[in-house]
Amino acid sequence: MIVSALLTSIGINLAICIFYFTLYSILRKQPGNIHVYAPRLLAEGKSQPGDRFNLERLLPSAGWVRRAWQPSEEDLLSKSGLDAVVLMRVFIFSLRVFCFAGIVGIFILLPVNYLGTQLKIDFSDLPNESLDIFSISNVDNASKRLWIHFTAVYVFTGVVCYLLYYEYNYISSKRISYFYASKPQPHQFTILVRGIPLSAGKSFSDTVESFFTEYHPSTYLSNLVVRQTNKLQNLIRDVNILCKRLVNLKSENTAQKKYTRDGFLGLFGRKVDLVHHHEKLLGDLEENVRVEQLGVSLSGEVPAAFVSFKFRYGAAVALHIQQSINPLEWITEQAPEPYDVYWPFFSASFMPIWVSKLVVYIACFILTVLFLIPVVFVQGLTNLGQLETFFPFLKGILTITFISQIITGYLPNLILQLFLKIVPPIMKFLSSKEGCISNSGILMSACKKVLWFTIWNIFFANVLSGSALSQVSIILEPKTIPAKLAAAVPAQASFFIAYVVTSGWTGESSELVRIIPLICYCIRKLSSCCSTGDEFDVPSLPYESEIPRILFFGLLGITYFFLAPLILPFLLAYYCLGYIIYRNQLLNVYDPKFETGGKFWPIVHNSTIFSLVLMHILAVGLFGLKKLPLASSLCIPLPILTLLFNEYCRKRFLPIFKAYPAECLIKKDREDQNDPAMNDFLDKLVTAYQDPSLMPMQHSSNIDEYNTPLLHSREV
Amino acid sequence: MIVSALLTSIGINLAICIFYFTLYSILRKQPGNIHVYAPRLLAEGKSQPGDRFNLERLLPSAGWVRRAWQPSEEDLLSKSGLDAVVLMRVFIFSLRVFCFAGIVGIFILLPVNYLGTQLKIDFSDLPNESLDIFSISNVDNASKRLWIHFTAVYVFTGVVCYLLYYEYNYISSKRISYFYASKPQPHQFTILVRGIPLSAGKSFSDTVESFFTEYHPSTYLSNLVVRQTNKLQNLIRDVNILCKRLVNLKSENTAQKKYTRDGFLGLFGRKVDLVHHHEKLLGDLEENVRVEQLGVSLSGEVPAAFVSFKFRYGAAVALHIQQSINPLEWITEQAPEPYDVYWPFFSASFMPIWVSKLVVYIACFILTVLFLIPVVFVQGLTNLGQLETFFPFLKGILTITFISQIITGYLPNLILQLFLKIVPPIMKFLSSKEGCISNSGILMSACKKVLWFTIWNIFFANVLSGSALSQVSIILEPKTIPAKLAAAVPAQASFFIAYVVTSGWTGESSELVRIIPLICYCIRKLSSCCSTGDEFDVPSLPYESEIPRILFFGLLGITYFFLAPLILPFLLAYYCLGYIIYRNQLLNVYDPKFETGGKFWPIVHNSTIFSLVLMHILAVGLFGLKKLPLASSLCIPLPILTLLFNEYCRKRFLPIFKAYPAECLIKKDREDQNDPAMNDFLDKLVTAYQDPSLMPMQHSSNIDEYNTPLLHSREV
Repeated sequence: MIVSALLTSIGINLAICIFYFTLYSILRKQPGNIHVYAPRLLAEGKSQPGDRFNLERLLPSAGWVRRAWQPSEEDLLSKSGLDAVVLMRVFIFSLRVFCFAGIVGIFILLPVNYLGTQLKIDFSDLPNESLDIFSISNVDNASKRLWIHFTAVYVFTGVVCYLLYYEYNYISSKRISYFYASKPQPHQFTILVRGIPLSAGKSFSDTVESFFTEYHPSTYLSNLVVRQTNKLQNLIRDVNILCKRLVNLKSENTAQKKYTRDGFLGLFGRKVDLVHHHEKLLGDLEENVRVEQLGVSLSGEVPAAFVSFKFRYGAAVALHIQQSINPLEWITEQAPEPYDVYWPFFSASFMPIWVSKLVVYIACFILTVLFLIPVVFVQGLTNLGQLETFFPFLKGILTITFISQIITGYLPNLILQLFLKIVPPIMKFLSSKEGCISNSGILMSACKKVLWFTIWNIFFANVLSGSALSQVSIILEPKTIPAKLAAAVPAQASFFIAYVVTSGWTGESSELVRIIPLICYCIRKLSSCCSTGDEFDVPSLPYESEIPRILFFGLLGITYFFLAPLILPFLLAYYCLGYIIYRNQLLNVYDPKFETGGKFWPIVHNSTIFSLVLMHILAVGLFGLKKLPLASSLCIPLPILTLLFNEYCRKRFLPIFKAYPAECLIKKDREDQNDPAMNDFLDKLVTAYQDPSLMPMQHSSNIDEYNTPLLHSREV
Repeated sequence: MIVSALLTSIGINLAICIFYFTLYSILRKQPGNIHVYAPRLLAEGKSQPGDRFNLERLLPSAGWVRRAWQPSEEDLLSKSGLDAVVLMRVFIFSLRVFCFAGIVGIFILLPVNYLGTQLKIDFSDLPNESLDIFSISNVDNASKRLWIHFTAVYVFTGVVCYLLYYEYNYISSKRISYFYASKPQPHQFTILVRGIPLSAGKSFSDTVESFFTEYHPSTYLSNLVVRQTNKLQNLIRDVNILCKRLVNLKSENTAQKKYTRDGFLGLFGRKVDLVHHHEKLLGDLEENVRVEQLGVSLSGEVPAAFVSFKFRYGAAVALHIQQSINPLEWITEQAPEPYDVYWPFFSASFMPIWVSKLVVYIACFILTVLFLIPVVFVQGLTNLGQLETFFPFLKGILTITFISQIITGYLPNLILQLFLKIVPPIMKFLSSKEGCISNSGILMSACKKVLWFTIWNIFFANVLSGSALSQVSIILEPKTIPAKLAAAVPAQASFFIAYVVTSGWTGESSELVRIIPLICYCIRKLSSCCSTGDEFDVPSLPYESEIPRILFFGLLGITYFFLAPLILPFLLAYYCLGYIIYRNQLLNVYDPKFETGGKFWPIVHNSTIFSLVLMHILAVGLFGLKKLPLASSLCIPLPILTLLFNEYCRKRFLPIFKAYPAECLIKKDREDQNDPAMNDFLDKLVTAYQDPSLMPMQHSSNIDEYNTPLLHSREV
């Protein structure tokens, strides 16, 4: 890519960003849009859709930036929980890393690269020159100046490791203090037991009861055996849909009466009153639900149960010690928060979970391989010559400079983005089949999958720009990896700079404007369905797509730090944008549906370590290619030291993210002993993990509460 | 190797074996040798050295075979513990595997190989033909008959996996019932805590006391802080040596008085009475020990302690739950049996242990690489042409058929064996520096190291018959591994058949005769030191060298099963020999010094899985080389299925070998509650983990009990 193409791309994206910002600052002031831009505040009753019109509403302003900037971390913690804080810490960490990298890269490495003579650049025609003059490719082979890059790699690794340690330490202490500050919560007192053995003549519930009263008599409180409710859940979903429709019909009822026919597809048969027809249907469905609920209560037991204890420590003891002689029976697991339980797919015993995990991994692998087809196509688009060969009729258009620059600089990324949008939902779906018992677990698993998918399919597929086979073949010849990567990675620097600008800047700004929710909202408002004004969902942050995106930019920054430091200012701008935008969204838009207590941080840590090691491998390969074998060999200890550092961090911090230590649990338990509210809490705990689909329904009698069963799940 | 060379080797080794057996059956009947051949029975007082002479004593007999065969597994368990039973189960498992393999190999695969025409053998001159006519190399390329080998590989894998599962299941149930049958033992009630944090103004002992009374008030019993006693241990060793010498001197005292001079090296100065001189020295040393003991008791605390609990379950709870917020403090670990504690090297905190582990791994790696030098030299010896080039003066001798056959068939293995003898002690030494707290832990770690060392340096070094570099390069090109191995492994079949005969048969028989202990014993008897007749050590079985040896033969059998089935009868003979010989030695010679409760079995299991996967890789490569690509591809699922099976076994059985489940612990605790002897036991438990070097000494006053401090460690 030449300099002018990059400038075009930057120009377009900058314009789009400014447009989005302006649009947002105007749209958010329109009272009607409060459902889109501040659903959270609305749900909390802090903001009411007003109707007062004034001119100010039509002028863009930057007041929201100030409001997003102001709240302290404590405010954010209390409002959005620890996960939101961790997300913001990812930005702060990245900003620190890339501030340092940017200063070193722009003021030391960039001039060194620019002064090289390897590429024999014609400086009089800079706009038409390749961006490679700013990259390490321009430094002469075996030049002494490469030692500057070598030193930079060492110093940068040290700084990143220090920051990683600092941040891990900070977040783990936050996690502990968050636990200390928490009220008693059902999931702290409860474990999930799977693989309950079948005893002759005894229900699972009785088996659990007798096992835990036998072996944990002083701490055991109660158990709730899980039941197979897939069919029931489908029925309830139907009831809810029907309810919704009925409510809408009734609200329109005053104006006009609607009729349908009772035959096939409502086209044939007798004309009947639509409301009456729906009410009858609803009554039938509810009867079905009741019958099914009764059936499930009597016979639908699954060999899994939520077992609650009187103390947090009691639950932890049962969790950590293998209960039965057969380790595949009485498998214990931390219970998720009650509203975080993922009821639909409830595998109870070891083998099905294991097999489904295996199948999911294979499916992910296949998805990763198949996804390369669009990526290869997109790569073809950046090559004008190839495009002209495939589509000769485009020849005329492609000679126009502007169009060709758009095609090489902007379009490939856009198409890639559209394809990538469908990956997180697919990964989330796959993760949900893996046997996770909680929504948060599914999100974390999906987050990891999306991250590795992104690294593999965007970074490696672009760098190696080949078919799946050529990628696989590089793994089979580990000896040649550094040299191959070192030859391929710097060549793609300009592509990734454009990627940061397109996907990073514009993607982040479009997150601010929330185009798709806005359009949906407008359609709903225009259609007849909008009549139920109070009905809206407060969305939760899609961690499974956002965290991998942020981390992928980190990977780009770290690997290109010494290869092509020109990428760093663009990344810094991205992280600044992201910091403000996500603070704003967390405070106004997203409501946390669950709390993992900062368990996303280890993913961030591992990804950063991976990026560092990748950079080291590149350094080994590149100094080799640049005919500086000494520097190449001296880089070999770096990945080893980094991995040792990682191992240390795993030992030092990871256990805190897996479970709380005895010290904390016992302290909290002792505090609670004097709390008179604990008896109430323990009473509630007994039924906290009741499957929401087994709760009684009262739709017909009180139609306005049709979404009660959904809310039930959050109420505990 | 040609057929006649193999026959020579077999002949020599068979002769040696028969000689050894005859020698053993005579020598063991000599009353003087009872210290060598039945030290265990002697120590138990079941056998007394008699002096009655009769002719029968000089005739070889096979009565010992019957006596070794007779005892049931229960007898062995009660006499030698679970580890001995596990060792015998390794033989039984191997016998079952190779009985099946032998039947399939000899009656199906061998005839198929022999009927092939690939190698164009001259059948009229069989003795001078290569052994390869019995191997798969002789089957024609792309022959349909190779599908017989393919089926055999699949069936054999299935049979081995079934036997592995059966055996794992059997041993884990043995382990549980062994635990149920055990009396209360200190290590069941105790954990080791390392990384005790430093509190201002408090000793470690107080810190431990206050921590456990705070967090485990109902189960905590006592603690014993570990002290740095390296210097003290050296002093006590000196005292013991001096004592021994003094006892010997005194027993000779009646006959003559000995003198020494009190100057340099006993050569100059005044003439003094030797006994008096030694007594004075001993007195000084003992005074030193007492001063040092006092000093250590006052100030030598190390941040590690043995913490005992009132119940097994209490210890398990403290063991399994992370105690402190900082996972590197209060690190808990299962305590070993008191006499199994490895006192000399007692690392207390996380970092030193971690660093020393790392250093040990690096040292092992270097040892593995350096060891190739003798192996390469030994390989050279099997090549007569090379030998003649290096040592031209040998030309005359080497032309004699018998000598050349000895050199190619026997000598290389002998030299390799001598080199290999020094590896287990080195690995044991390295493992002892790794931070293990128990002798059994050191043995297990050394066992794994020796096993991988053997596989790498005997199997791979011989197969790839090259320098370290060519071995490393194969790892760096994983794609070519199957083809390279498939080309190299069958070519070494005859070497390994000779290896089984030399190292297996003769090695095992020499184990029976115990040549080195016999020689040592004779020397001691002849020298003046022998006067203290009762003084002898009952040895313990050197698991760290025996188990890897047995497993390595299993690896050979499994990998060569379909390549060169001729190896199988020799292996079967080896396992039959080993079964009888080890039973005999376990019953008569070796006394278990500690009990791991069958923890060696997972090593056996993993090694067998590795052998299977190696066989599968060979099958993939070999069917490829034999131009049967379909069979080659159809072999690829085999290693994957085997690894999945292994993963299942890890989940199903391994936890039982790590720790006992809550169910067992609580049951045992309840049984003990009604036992009046428990109070006594708990009283003793408080001091069970006292460092033996801190116990008071009474040498001068009662010289006959000079080995008291050594026995102390076993007494608890």
